[in-house]
Amino acid sequence: MAPRKPSIPKGTRDFSPSEMARRNYIFDTIRSVFGLFGYRQIETPAMENLSTLMGKYGEEGDKLLFKILNSGDFLRSVDRNLVDAGDYVHLTSQLSEKGLRYDLTVPFARFVVQHRDELQLPFKRFQIQPVWRADRPQKGRYREFYQCDADVVGSNSLMNEVELLQLIDEVFRRLKIRVAIKLNNRKVLAGIAELIGAPDKLIDITVAIDKIDKIGLEKVNEELAERGLSQEAIAALRPILEINGSLQERLAKLETLLSGVEIGRLGVEELRTVVDGTLALGLDAELDLDVSLARGLNYYTGTIIEVKALDVQIGSITGGGRYDNLTGVFGLDGISGVGISFGADRIYDVLNTLELYPEDITVATKVLFINFGAAESAAALKCVKSLRQAGISAEVYPDAAKMKKQMAYADAQKIPYVAIIGETELAENVATLKNMASGEQTKVPFAQLAEHLL
Amino acid sequence: MAPRKPSIPKGTRDFSPSEMARRNYIFDTIRSVFGLFGYRQIETPAMENLSTLMGKYGEEGDKLLFKILNSGDFLRSVDRNLVDAGDYVHLTSQLSEKGLRYDLTVPFARFVVQHRDELQLPFKRFQIQPVWRADRPQKGRYREFYQCDADVVGSNSLMNEVELLQLIDEVFRRLKIRVAIKLNNRKVLAGIAELIGAPDKLIDITVAIDKIDKIGLEKVNEELAERGLSQEAIAALRPILEINGSLQERLAKLETLLSGVEIGRLGVEELRTVVDGTLALGLDAELDLDVSLARGLNYYTGTIIEVKALDVQIGSITGGGRYDNLTGVFGLDGISGVGISFGADRIYDVLNTLELYPEDITVATKVLFINFGAAESAAALKCVKSLRQAGISAEVYPDAAKMKKQMAYADAQKIPYVAIIGETELAENVATLKNMASGEQTKVPFAQLAEHLL
Repeated sequence: MAPRKPSIPKGTRDFSPSEMARRNYIFDTIRSVFGLFGYRQIETPAMENLSTLMGKYGEEGDKLLFKILNSGDFLRSVDRNLVDAGDYVHLTSQLSEKGLRYDLTVPFARFVVQHRDELQLPFKRFQIQPVWRADRPQKGRYREFYQCDADVVGSNSLMNEVELLQLIDEVFRRLKIRVAIKLNNRKVLAGIAELIGAPDKLIDITVAIDKIDKIGLEKVNEELAERGLSQEAIAALRPILEINGSLQERLAKLETLLSGVEIGRLGVEELRTVVDGTLALGLDAELDLDVSLARGLNYYTGTIIEVKALDVQIGSITGGGRYDNLTGVFGLDGISGVGISFGADRIYDVLNTLELYPEDITVATKVLFINFGAAESAAALKCVKSLRQAGISAEVYPDAAKMKKQMAYADAQKIPYVAIIGETELAENVATLKNMASGEQTKVPFAQLAEHLL
Repeated sequence: MAPRKPSIPKGTRDFSPSEMARRNYIFDTIRSVFGLFGYRQIETPAMENLSTLMGKYGEEGDKLLFKILNSGDFLRSVDRNLVDAGDYVHLTSQLSEKGLRYDLTVPFARFVVQHRDELQLPFKRFQIQPVWRADRPQKGRYREFYQCDADVVGSNSLMNEVELLQLIDEVFRRLKIRVAIKLNNRKVLAGIAELIGAPDKLIDITVAIDKIDKIGLEKVNEELAERGLSQEAIAALRPILEINGSLQERLAKLETLLSGVEIGRLGVEELRTVVDGTLALGLDAELDLDVSLARGLNYYTGTIIEVKALDVQIGSITGGGRYDNLTGVFGLDGISGVGISFGADRIYDVLNTLELYPEDITVATKVLFINFGAAESAAALKCVKSLRQAGISAEVYPDAAKMKKQMAYADAQKIPYVAIIGETELAENVATLKNMASGEQTKVPFAQLAEHLL
């Protein structure tokens, strides 16, 4: 019996050459924009100590960490009572010391603290690496996926926010994806909670109003009541959620509404600085204010950023914000940071849906030499060598197979030119160069092949 | 009490921006040569099913696999008798279904079988990804390291070997590392074992003679005796190990010695085809024959390739060979392959030792604008935007900090130009551009900055 066809773990993916070409197009675009903006690349290990990861993503996050079984006799230090009690939660820390990284932010915070003596602040870093989450796989959600993060630490200046918005705009301009960038500020949210007399209900309010686009204002109000907000508070919240008009008009209305609340006023001021700075430079993306935007509220302390694609129904494709105490959890206080994370896998889905890839990205080899046997292919190999020296990717079909098979190979790989060196051509030191798109054939002397193909 | 400074698991590494620049130089060089030669990139998941990985790397390899603890209640399906017996080996398969990839070859074999219906053979793939091994960490040996593999499957032609040797030569020519490429052939080794009357001792012979460079011929002979070879066999082996002269002379002598052994003759013929094909095209590297070269013998069936740096004492920096039945273990027989693997981390060590990096690789930002406050930095941001549009990486220092601090930042990042827009410059729409190497200062109108810096 033949063995079962092998497979890969659910929620993970293989990437074929044509998929890789598309993915590299995204990564290369993001990477070069990061570079243009002065961000510098770092990498951290796939595995981190569980002491670094645990407790950073909430109780649910702890469960979603992939944990590495200790090497060797992992049973040695295990408390058998825990086994008998079936207490796998407490047993985990005895069986495993390491886990796979869950995002790039916590490893970055760990990196900053660990290497603080070598780092010059402000430190602008970018990082493009996979992360792993033991989430239930579903459409668009994977257990292994890439994040592309850029963060500045060690600077409180709101110019960093302006720069990051310019960076986002440049990435999506290059990728030709039309987007809306939504802004909010944690201090505005705190101000709203205070204004409506429910400062202790900040989390409840944000969790509820975050759903307003999906479920509408009335359902949000029902949820707020369930979460213990008084009818007075809910009524006071309504005018804020119903603010409308242009971006500048809404900022002005928000400013008026929050004028009596110190923290809220500060939040509006920050928003205005970021908005004005960004508009002064100009941007292709729509810029929008969204007071219902929260995104991992426990984390951000100032600006909150979210990017949505305008032409595809999909969740946010980029997000970020400011966190005043990124490294505090690792014992280094007072380092502020602001950053964004591009969701490469969702961007990949958007580009696939809209078919926005440039035409030539999947071309690897420019010219394939047909193999007619030992003497002819020896000459072909010499041509190929000099073409490569001219920077032209070229190959010889490795076997003297039937012409039809060799041409099918060129077709399947979308190779734009085929070169034929048969007996006649060999005698004349020429190759017959066939343009696969037009069908046009030209005899070209060996020495002029590079020139002809460039 | 301050928390302990965080750390990373032993055997793993963080890479700083300057280290990343050096590593990217290596990866980019290898990646572009792979592309020039018509290899196409794939990626596979970090995690594979343990059924894919186990039993492929020997008993020792099974132990060195990093295994992922099953998610959720991993105790549910555990046999408590195994726990009581302390039988962690058998318990492993109940606690873990997935492991981290150990190399790129087994995942590639799995990929070929899983996607065989979509693949056009011959299939030339490259893959550059990290692998993980629970080895004891030591100098130059890590638990997470990168492999850069290129393989062709589905072609028996020795032209593939010739091409791979050309590819190796091109990579090291570009990296400016002087290397020797050593060749052998598994059939030659089998022929030798047959010639000296010990065909069943093939493994023992190769394990022993592999050490000849380190311990010398006499010690090798002692080990051969310990491994049960007769004195006649050891005496018959001597002339083969003592073959000398030029590459062609040694090939000729080996041919004579093995003329009576069919498999050995075939091996020499293959070697000669590869050597002649390679020399006809020319190469910068030294090409050498080494009958003591074995490298994972159980695996290779034809050509064996190993690359050593000439100017640094370090293990092999690239290796590879032909395997006739790569995918047989996954139920798909008859697919031959030949491939090579560049050891990126050792190449990194060689380049660091010899300081062979180009001078400009660590430069990220080309020009830093000094921040003198709101009005000046707003103008600076506009300049920066147009510089970036011209492809010049530029940034504004985010805070209006002391001049000295801002200049120190430029120094630390090795930024070659600093642009100053103070009150005077702002009034004149010019920036004072300072060349950090020469100290030279020039006043440049905003609109001419890009031109000036290109």
